[in-house]
Parts: sequence; C-alpha cells; structure tokens
Amino acid sequence: MGVILSDDFLKVKRGAELEITDRAHLYEILDAGKVIHIGFAAPDAYPVVIPLAYARDEDRLLIHGSTGSRLFRSLAAGAKLCGTVTLLDGIVLARSAFHSAMNYRSVMVFGTATEIASEEKARELELFTNKLISDRWSEVRPMTNKESAATMVLSIELTQISGKVRVGGPAGEDEEDLALPIWAGHIPIEETYLPPIAAPNIPAGTKLPKSLS
Amino acid sequence: MGVILSDDFLKVKRGAELEITDRAHLYEILDAGKVIHIGFAAPDAYPVVIPLAYARDEDRLLIHGSTGSRLFRSLAAGAKLCGTVTLLDGIVLARSAFHSAMNYRSVMVFGTATEIASEEKARELELFTNKLISDRWSEVRPMTNKESAATMVLSIELTQISGKVRVGGPAGEDEEDLALPIWAGHIPIEETYLPPIAAPNIPAGTKLPKSLS
Repeated sequence: MGVILSDDFLKVKRGAELEITDRAHLYEILDAGKVIHIGFAAPDAYPVVIPLAYARDEDRLLIHGSTGSRLFRSLAAGAKLCGTVTLLDGIVLARSAFHSAMNYRSVMVFGTATEIASEEKARELELFTNKLISDRWSEVRPMTNKESAATMVLSIELTQISGKVRVGGPAGEDEEDLALPIWAGHIPIEETYLPPIAAPNIPAGTKLPKSLS
Repeated sequence: MGVILSDDFLKVKRGAELEITDRAHLYEILDAGKVIHIGFAAPDAYPVVIPLAYARDEDRLLIHGSTGSRLFRSLAAGAKLCGTVTLLDGIVLARSAFHSAMNYRSVMVFGTATEIASEEKARELELFTNKLISDRWSEVRPMTNKESAATMVLSIELTQISGKVRVGGPAGEDEEDLALPIWAGHIPIEETYLPPIAAPNIPAGTKLPKSLS
C-alpha cells in the first residue's frame, strides 16, 4: 500500500488522529477534495508545490494543464512527485495550546505522471468538469480539437497512497488540565457554496441549468 | 521579489488571473489561510508535500512540529523547500469546459527553514494559537517547559514570495460562444464556521469564552 507517514501531518496529536488504509475511504477523501498540491523537484533547484484541480478515474489521479507549460512538461517527463489533498474540517480547542489541533482529512500520493493519449482526453476532461458540477459536461459547448490539443492530461497511478484523518474534540490532554475552568471543544468548518452569479453577458432568458438547481 | 511562476497555477486563464506583487496583498492571503503545503525533497527520493498549520510574524512564516519528527529535522537541517497556501474562492462556469476555471488566491514561498531559539518560542506559539482563534492564548493553561522543549518552531524568511489570484466570472471565452444559450457565471465558495461543540468533559458551568462569542 506504499508509504505511510506516521508523525508529520499538521501537529500530530496521537489518540484522535488515525491513519487511513482503507482504499474506499482514501478515494472518498480524494473525491471530496477540489485542489491537490503537487510537489516535485528538479536537481539542485528549489522544489515547487503547485495547486491544481484534479479528478480521479478509478485507480488513477488526473491533472491537466497547458501543453505549453514548463511545469507540466517536467511532470510528463517523469519527475518524481508527491500530491497532497487536504480538507480542513475544524479547529480543536484544548485547555492547553499544546494539545490544540485541527480536524482534517488528508491523502498523500507518491508517483510519476504519464501523459494521456489524445483519444482518451475527452473522457478524462469530462471527469474534471463533472467532478465540480454534476453533469456540467452535457451542458457546455463540445470541446474542439484545438482545445484538446492545447490541453495536457497527466495520470498518476494510485499505488503509493496514504491518508490521515483527525476528528472530534481535544484528545490526549493532561489529566490535571481536565478540571480547569477552561472551555474546550471543537469548531467544525464547512465549505459553503453561495448562490450562483450569472455572467452579465449571457443571452436574456438563459436559465440556470439543471446542474445548478 | 523572487520567483514568479507565470503559467502554472491551476488551469491558467489569462485575463481573469493576476499575479500579485504587492506585499500587503500577499500577506493578507497568508493571514487568511490556515494550512500551508510544504514540499521538500531528499536526493534520489520522492519529494514530500505535507499540510501544516502556520502563522506569519512580520516577514517570516512559522511552522511547528514535534522535535522528534524526522521531517521537521530535515527541514531544520536546511532542506530547500517550497510552501504554498491556496484559498479556493469559487467555481467558474464558462460556456465551454475549456474556459471553465476556479477562483482562488494562492501564495508560494521558496526558502529554507531556521529553528527558532527556545526563548522566542512562546511568543511564536502565541501567534499560532491566536491566528485561529483571536486571544485564545490568554484563555488556555500556560505552556510548560516540557511542552516547549517538545515543540520545534521553524521560521522561513518571506523573501522569495509570489502570488496569484483569480476572481469573477468566465473570461477569455470565444466570441462565438457568447451567443450560445448556455448559462455561464460563477459560484462563490466560502469557509463557514459551525457553532462550537463543547467537549463532554468540561466542568459544569464552564462558559463559552470571549474568543468564541
């Protein structure tokens, strides 16, 4: 199942943090995230960590960018990479700063990227589009050959994958702290979608599509 | 002002994306974020991208972890690193998949980390605590020497720093697409704090603190 990092996600609080080894759970986190931070390094240079949209297709993770992008060309050339998806779920307030923490879900993938062949691209780009807005692909103007040619889609096999999750309130606090009259608990954080804002130039009468209602 | 990456954040849509060079604006984004993805590489190994809590103290970025952490020791030993903070602000729906995008704010920092001396630690840990919940430091049980000794605080100078932002609706769309009867616009995304959940073991009568009300 690959590399499992045991002690370095955020500030480690044993007891409330769990390593995830179940693949369905790892994939659930990947499917819930929207941005992956991909890191890679050229020899003798600074590593680079870039935020990218991504999608999952079965046991592969997909990213896409411009065929003209130097970073995408480096990745396509086989640079070793690490991709991390983190969902922040809350703030944990203990009676001490030391035991305070964050709730989160995080998945880390190690591997190299492979370019997807032209004939497969449309299918993968459909996954990207529908990941963010269900069925949006069927509503948009079909992709042109020129657009497809300008887009590089890379896939990363989900073989070396690990995850961690922290849930709930404070944990591991000192016994003597529990009697202190200090409020402790946690504050859940959620991602909220606000109402859609129409572009000013859509033709009069254009209705909000099914995908958004 | 350091490295500016020009074409690789998310899917680049020229026109609506702007590079940020103003330091006050870059710091505003750093102060609004809660998680940084730090990437670094050991020679001949996979790079590692870890999500960490962070804080800013003037022109330095601070991270903290266990003194026993192998990753923190690598960083303290001077490994070249890249830290990226990304705030996802919305989903942009164009009439074409190709011009669809995300709204975001992102800051990238390159550098190396330096360990903060013991006598400075308390001040920096106060910044971490109060970044998430204003004035929380004054409410919690004071940090012990043992806790301070177990915590490594690293600082990264904010000299090589760059940022990008994308705001608003679709941009750069093909002229002929604008007449299509396809809804276009954007959906803002916000981070929402839900009501605090008290730990079951706080002493009866412990009130919600000022910091949370």
